[in-house]
Amino acid sequence: MKDSVESVEPREDQRERGHRSGPVACLRSRFIRVGLAEALCTYVMMVFGLGSVAQVVTGHGAFGQYLSINIGFGLGVTMGVHVGGSVSGAHMNAAVSLAMCMFGRLAWKMLPVYVFAQFLGSFLAAATIYTVFNDAIYDFGGGNLTTTGAKATAGIFATYPAPYLSLQSGFIDQVLGTAMLLLCLTALSDQRNKPAARGSESLMVGLLVMLIGVSLGSNSGYPINPTRDLAPRLFTAVAGWGNEVFRAGNGWWWVPVVAPLLGGVMGAGLYKALVELHHPAIVCGQNGHGEQEEMDLLEKPSHADVCV
Amino acid sequence: MKDSVESVEPREDQRERGHRSGPVACLRSRFIRVGLAEALCTYVMMVFGLGSVAQVVTGHGAFGQYLSINIGFGLGVTMGVHVGGSVSGAHMNAAVSLAMCMFGRLAWKMLPVYVFAQFLGSFLAAATIYTVFNDAIYDFGGGNLTTTGAKATAGIFATYPAPYLSLQSGFIDQVLGTAMLLLCLTALSDQRNKPAARGSESLMVGLLVMLIGVSLGSNSGYPINPTRDLAPRLFTAVAGWGNEVFRAGNGWWWVPVVAPLLGGVMGAGLYKALVELHHPAIVCGQNGHGEQEEMDLLEKPSHADVCV
Amino acid sequence: MKDSVESVEPREDQRERGHRSGPVACLRSRFIRVGLAEALCTYVMMVFGLGSVAQVVTGHGAFGQYLSINIGFGLGVTMGVHVGGSVSGAHMNAAVSLAMCMFGRLAWKMLPVYVFAQFLGSFLAAATIYTVFNDAIYDFGGGNLTTTGAKATAGIFATYPAPYLSLQSGFIDQVLGTAMLLLCLTALSDQRNKPAARGSESLMVGLLVMLIGVSLGSNSGYPINPTRDLAPRLFTAVAGWGNEVFRAGNGWWWVPVVAPLLGGVMGAGLYKALVELHHPAIVCGQNGHGEQEEMDLLEKPSHADVCV
Amino acid sequence: MKDSVESVEPREDQRERGHRSGPVACLRSRFIRVGLAEALCTYVMMVFGLGSVAQVVTGHGAFGQYLSINIGFGLGVTMGVHVGGSVSGAHMNAAVSLAMCMFGRLAWKMLPVYVFAQFLGSFLAAATIYTVFNDAIYDFGGGNLTTTGAKATAGIFATYPAPYLSLQSGFIDQVLGTAMLLLCLTALSDQRNKPAARGSESLMVGLLVMLIGVSLGSNSGYPINPTRDLAPRLFTAVAGWGNEVFRAGNGWWWVPVVAPLLGGVMGAGLYKALVELHHPAIVCGQNGHGEQEEMDLLEKPSHADVCV
Repeated sequence: MKDSVESVEPREDQRERGHRSGPVACLRSRFIRVGLAEALCTYVMMVFGLGSVAQVVTGHGAFGQYLSINIGFGLGVTMGVHVGGSVSGAHMNAAVSLAMCMFGRLAWKMLPVYVFAQFLGSFLAAATIYTVFNDAIYDFGGGNLTTTGAKATAGIFATYPAPYLSLQSGFIDQVLGTAMLLLCLTALSDQRNKPAARGSESLMVGLLVMLIGVSLGSNSGYPINPTRDLAPRLFTAVAGWGNEVFRAGNGWWWVPVVAPLLGGVMGAGLYKALVELHHPAIVCGQNGHGEQEEMDLLEKPSHADVCV
Repeated sequence: MKDSVESVEPREDQRERGHRSGPVACLRSRFIRVGLAEALCTYVMMVFGLGSVAQVVTGHGAFGQYLSINIGFGLGVTMGVHVGGSVSGAHMNAAVSLAMCMFGRLAWKMLPVYVFAQFLGSFLAAATIYTVFNDAIYDFGGGNLTTTGAKATAGIFATYPAPYLSLQSGFIDQVLGTAMLLLCLTALSDQRNKPAARGSESLMVGLLVMLIGVSLGSNSGYPINPTRDLAPRLFTAVAGWGNEVFRAGNGWWWVPVVAPLLGGVMGAGLYKALVELHHPAIVCGQNGHGEQEEMDLLEKPSHADVCV
Repeated sequence: MKDSVESVEPREDQRERGHRSGPVACLRSRFIRVGLAEALCTYVMMVFGLGSVAQVVTGHGAFGQYLSINIGFGLGVTMGVHVGGSVSGAHMNAAVSLAMCMFGRLAWKMLPVYVFAQFLGSFLAAATIYTVFNDAIYDFGGGNLTTTGAKATAGIFATYPAPYLSLQSGFIDQVLGTAMLLLCLTALSDQRNKPAARGSESLMVGLLVMLIGVSLGSNSGYPINPTRDLAPRLFTAVAGWGNEVFRAGNGWWWVPVVAPLLGGVMGAGLYKALVELHHPAIVCGQNGHGEQEEMDLLEKPSHADVCV
Repeated sequence: MKDSVESVEPREDQRERGHRSGPVACLRSRFIRVGLAEALCTYVMMVFGLGSVAQVVTGHGAFGQYLSINIGFGLGVTMGVHVGGSVSGAHMNAAVSLAMCMFGRLAWKMLPVYVFAQFLGSFLAAATIYTVFNDAIYDFGGGNLTTTGAKATAGIFATYPAPYLSLQSGFIDQVLGTAMLLLCLTALSDQRNKPAARGSESLMVGLLVMLIGVSLGSNSGYPINPTRDLAPRLFTAVAGWGNEVFRAGNGWWWVPVVAPLLGGVMGAGLYKALVELHHPAIVCGQNGHGEQEEMDLLEKPSHADVCV
């Protein structure tokens, strides 16, 4: 619980280099800085991710297969980590932001900023992919925008469960997928165990997301991320697919919103309960990389941002 | 043979920071710490690995191919290395643990702890994948849980040999596969040659496991790991596939248990005999990375764990 | 805008080690050094990239699929970065060179050198691939060199749009693809955020190019690079495919020349406007890697080159 | 041409720690050390490489495709680099060894040792793969060992040209493939440009070999290595495929032996002529990683080996 953002008092030198117009302006400025970075990195991740699905769906098998989608979202996350970077920490996922709030790595008051920015970036990415693949979608669907069936294109944007999947099983599927994500993210950032090497975090997190797609994706398309799923679904509802996007899959839409929030906290907690909690009270000898650097993805915003 | 765990006497400062309730409590505490970490990292590796097989088997070709399984187990190992990390060394494989005991990198008394923890993690992962892919397995198999034939699903959990493979050839196959694993692991951790770069061990080991699947997997599904194979097989026997899982393949089940133990020691020994043994007696000039750090996977548990 | 090449005055010690025959010879010498390196790295990237397309087109599905092309261009860029390295910065793309001039990272007077060298390297690579795959192209096309239809081979060298794509949509497609490229390149080299780790730039840039192929390639084959596309197209016009290469796709050829130049500047500008511009005026505490090293791809030529 | 092995005089301290029984024993000892390491790393690379071909050929499409072979040889090289490491430099390729002799990085008198060790390792790897995939080869070929046709299995071990390829075109193909290999290897080890990051050499070289397979492999299976190709071909001649392995492809066998030797020297020379030669005479300011470390693959054997 060290260095919780809540408990940080701005130090004198931080005040000095902050805006002089008082705490309100400073707070607003920080919200904007972090929000812009979080929105842009989510946008980047989603353009790459949704683009890879669009290619596979409309490409008639000639422009990639399922593995392409895993690579698209995986490396999309990697690039997003560099874009959001140390400004926002590049969560790009409300389940990550929530887990970080739960475990004291992010101030609760920042949560709405993150979620709104993620939602905005995700929505704009859906609009971008719709624009760029407009001809392809029209060509593939014969001019129709449908949610189910052989010519369905709604799956480019949001996830839909496999025909055999019950809502209950889908809920478990999303709890597990997001739990594995946060369990590994927490391990990758545990400086007292074997964290991702300094500078390799973006790649390791991208490989982790790719891995979840390779291993836990066939049931429901591994949303594991409320903001990744809901914003593009809303876009499709508005853009012409209609309310069917919310009715399909027996009203599937709420599962990728709720289950990841629960699973994320469970996964991070499981690692902490089974491994992190048992680290000896006094560390002597450096584990891992010898420095108490934290991984950006599970890090509080950098010092430069902490002016409240 | 330096720093064999057997010969380490707890130093005064280690005693100081250990538990004060005496060596028995300390020993028990250490067993639990290491065991929990080893169980959790094996669980993570197996969930990702078995999940990738489940997708390919039940996905009718739309959710990955054989290469996905190689990626699933490979990157699953990578993530497991970060989860078990420097607490247990993340062996996740009884053949690795045995080879480390043979060559003085792990105390023999720790072997049962490692094997039990690996078995437990592997069994729980099989149960998890069974739960999450329950609808998919039911849908694919038409409600039946069968071990052989076109609708077989037992292969999601444990390995079965190709129809053409004799038991003897399968034994050789598993000796070679595990020998290649341990040969390369030993090279990757040889600080006097060209070890894996600090911080890249998890990725290199994951790529190695992926490579074995790409190159030496078609005969029998490359178990190369007793605890990876036996625990999920036992689970399937209990969960409804029945005793057929032990009879199939002419009683194949014991081969992935015995052959890897033999092959692992042979592979590590081969590298040592042909390369490591011939390093000059006195090293002047740093090879590789200039520090006598050891690689976690073939390392004794970290100092914090050595209280016996 | 620091250290703009325009404003650099040669320091005394640089004059000392420069050629003694005066500024003109020095300038010419520098043009040749940088030009040779830029031409060679573009050649390397293009041989690997075009070769991967040639294999897929002529291989009847037995020597790779679309993903191979993504890997071919992606890792081709990675190798090119090592070849051009710190001598030219290995742009290999006129859109990258232009964006760097726009944002003060490259002197405008160097732009023609870069573009000419890239064009030359790209043209020679097309000639090389034509020579090496001559038998394969002849065999595949039945002796004919055609631009459209089932036996078309012009697509090995230059890009052609999908049948459904309008010129306007294609223009947007190329603006977006190149914008994503430069947006991420700018983030990867932003030393005040989370840049690519020192030594990993070549791999990250290669993965980025691969990712664009996986996500934004099906509409028009992701040229995102004027010199990559125009030079091989010119080669095919000369080598026997004829003027059809310029007429095909409703006169598509100019889109990959113009749109990337626009998109590149837009993408780099977007990152700067939303993230880089908002970094606090005074940096205290190191972001990223603690040194103000710049990434080669978006870097000015190294000090050794600055003799004007 | 610095530190050519030829010109090194054993320093006093090296004599001290060397064998006391005189220069002849010392020479023999060094030959054995280097030879054993070179043979073992070539063995490892070839087992993984040939194994991946065996899986694809005998697996009826269910155990990997062409890309698997690229990964098998690519990551096989990566693992080989760690096994041979700084003892032999892990050339695993007579064309690499020859180019190093030509450019003064390896003593000519070491060349026979390297070539013999590589040949031995390659031959034993072929025997190993034959043993392990014996049942699979028998099953696939219906009990026959044939070199050409739909049931051919000789291609598991050595390369055979595509039906359309003339010997002359095949020669050019192998010159180019090996030239690209050595061109990039030379760039990756050029400490005054942008070499592979310390510790990443094994991965970069593996990716390079994979890339050559993805881009320049369909004409003739990219041997680019005399010892990789001739030794397994000889094995197949002895093991039952007969003299047909030398007659097939219009007597193709000598092309992968001769052309790579020529291409390798040309590729390394091209990089040196166009880039390395033009580095300023005096380096001020560190390029790349600031230390004059050399890359193992193009390095002379480590100091510990230089006792003659």
